[in-house]
Amino acid sequence: MRAVKLTKSGLTFDVNYPKPVRGPSESLIRVSKAGICSTDLELVKGYYPFAGVLGHEFVGVVDESSEARWVGQRVVCSINFANPQSPEYAEYGLEHHPHRSVLGIVGRDGAMADFVSVPTWNLFEVPSELTDEEAVFAEPLAAALRICEQVIVSPSRSIAVVGPGRLGLLVGQVLQSRGAEVNLFGRSETSLKMAQALGLEADLVDRAETQKYALVVDCTGSPKGLEHALRMVRPRGTLILKSTYAGEANINLTKLVVDEIQVVGSRCGPFGAALRCLARREVNVTPLIDGRYSLDNAVIAFEHAAKPAVRKILLEISDSSIAS
Amino acid sequence: MRAVKLTKSGLTFDVNYPKPVRGPSESLIRVSKAGICSTDLELVKGYYPFAGVLGHEFVGVVDESSEARWVGQRVVCSINFANPQSPEYAEYGLEHHPHRSVLGIVGRDGAMADFVSVPTWNLFEVPSELTDEEAVFAEPLAAALRICEQVIVSPSRSIAVVGPGRLGLLVGQVLQSRGAEVNLFGRSETSLKMAQALGLEADLVDRAETQKYALVVDCTGSPKGLEHALRMVRPRGTLILKSTYAGEANINLTKLVVDEIQVVGSRCGPFGAALRCLARREVNVTPLIDGRYSLDNAVIAFEHAAKPAVRKILLEISDSSIAS
Repeated sequence: MRAVKLTKSGLTFDVNYPKPVRGPSESLIRVSKAGICSTDLELVKGYYPFAGVLGHEFVGVVDESSEARWVGQRVVCSINFANPQSPEYAEYGLEHHPHRSVLGIVGRDGAMADFVSVPTWNLFEVPSELTDEEAVFAEPLAAALRICEQVIVSPSRSIAVVGPGRLGLLVGQVLQSRGAEVNLFGRSETSLKMAQALGLEADLVDRAETQKYALVVDCTGSPKGLEHALRMVRPRGTLILKSTYAGEANINLTKLVVDEIQVVGSRCGPFGAALRCLARREVNVTPLIDGRYSLDNAVIAFEHAAKPAVRKILLEISDSSIAS
Repeated sequence: MRAVKLTKSGLTFDVNYPKPVRGPSESLIRVSKAGICSTDLELVKGYYPFAGVLGHEFVGVVDESSEARWVGQRVVCSINFANPQSPEYAEYGLEHHPHRSVLGIVGRDGAMADFVSVPTWNLFEVPSELTDEEAVFAEPLAAALRICEQVIVSPSRSIAVVGPGRLGLLVGQVLQSRGAEVNLFGRSETSLKMAQALGLEADLVDRAETQKYALVVDCTGSPKGLEHALRMVRPRGTLILKSTYAGEANINLTKLVVDEIQVVGSRCGPFGAALRCLARREVNVTPLIDGRYSLDNAVIAFEHAAKPAVRKILLEISDSSIAS
């Protein structure tokens, strides 16, 4: 089958990658569309030691399954594969954490291929009113919704989101849909246009008021963005780290103590809630799509996705309407 | 009057420092005892730009007051002086934060002197069953209790405290009194002896298990200690920064995101609760006293306090039993 794979020598498109063998509790999915995410770009840069098929944002149709009812269903899939029988899972609900593999990121082939095999446990049926292009946003939207699981998103709090990219635009929309006054901040006027088109207040980060916001979400993944975010948090406020940072970034710990700032690392989120959020049109995702490429042109698609200010690039793999 | 003052040329003992003039809403306190704290040592090292009388941990007797009922009372005093009429105070209870001066730390003469004048609003009466030597611990004990205001201290969580010094021993005792299993970690066997004598489980920090603890409190104030603390936190756990850090310390932000660690800066705490905690004998503080000096010998006392592994050094200023 076709697959976009990462090896020590870089990103390659392979037409003869072996089709995955479905495990006993798994489902084999014919992939319709996959999205390129910042984590994929970081993996390609070599920040994490992953080798295999990339891709963790996707939608597809179940071809074979450990449970017959799933066959033919259009699905998305949560990306952390853990053993539900593990004690950590049972006691602490740590399904995202220890003893895990992560689709297309840690120890597990991803979805930028004709087929992917995943634990049936991780599947979510896509509501019929959603297009494939919307459903492929379930993973990053779930990550945005994760914030609402971790901290109280009070409708009376002033909230800042730093970074008007792929993730920041989802986070801004999600928090605004919770009734809060949300301000999105970016480095250039151009970067703010999409935020404004989506109905978000947006301004240049250099103009953001110091110590104003009770909740600040850093979606930049850059030390400079983090510095801005930290500057904006009010005393006793909360700073959410929503992006992974490549390597070590500095943070002023004295400020954290003296101003009693709470810093919360935030990662993967609830897929069911993300699908509901999409189906209820609480967020608008398709304007974020900046390009569509056939899987055969994946290497060019990755080059496009890595350019500054580019938001979502999709890989078109099969047509879900004829897949089953 | 006598006073221990910090100027650009360093720490000096002054016998002719002007006695403070009591402001209209203030009380003038005859100081009985004052403690030397890590913050005092950092101020002397010049980490923060403070000039004036040092000292924010003290007990004394009210000599004059804006409210007659306080005269003759033995008191301790919370150290953040804010305007209760300020909007921040009213709306967010930010009495510890903006628009403040801090006794002996920011813009306000401290208590290492014969007299100190403080807002009457900040006074707390010391229960008669407490000695002066116990009462002087109200400030650091309040800081330890602050943790219980910020996060849930679950009796079923595994807790680690890093740093068996002045503050770590108070934090360890407070958290243990909440029913949790507390492990205190230090760098040398010698450093653990006092912890063990106080009934705390204590071990070498190099032996601490990685990713084990749901709650880790860093009381070291050192980048190395912080590194250990971060290593010990389990995924989705909480790291409390209980000490101020001199300058910038590094923290691995990728770990915070991937493991969804919550970092909480923690500062000053509730004095009323600290006095109750002392009166109920929930913590044992006097074994932490490593030396007692007359105010006249304050410079030598500071040298003693700055030595490794030294815990609390007290300055004896007047006898509270004859002060009134």
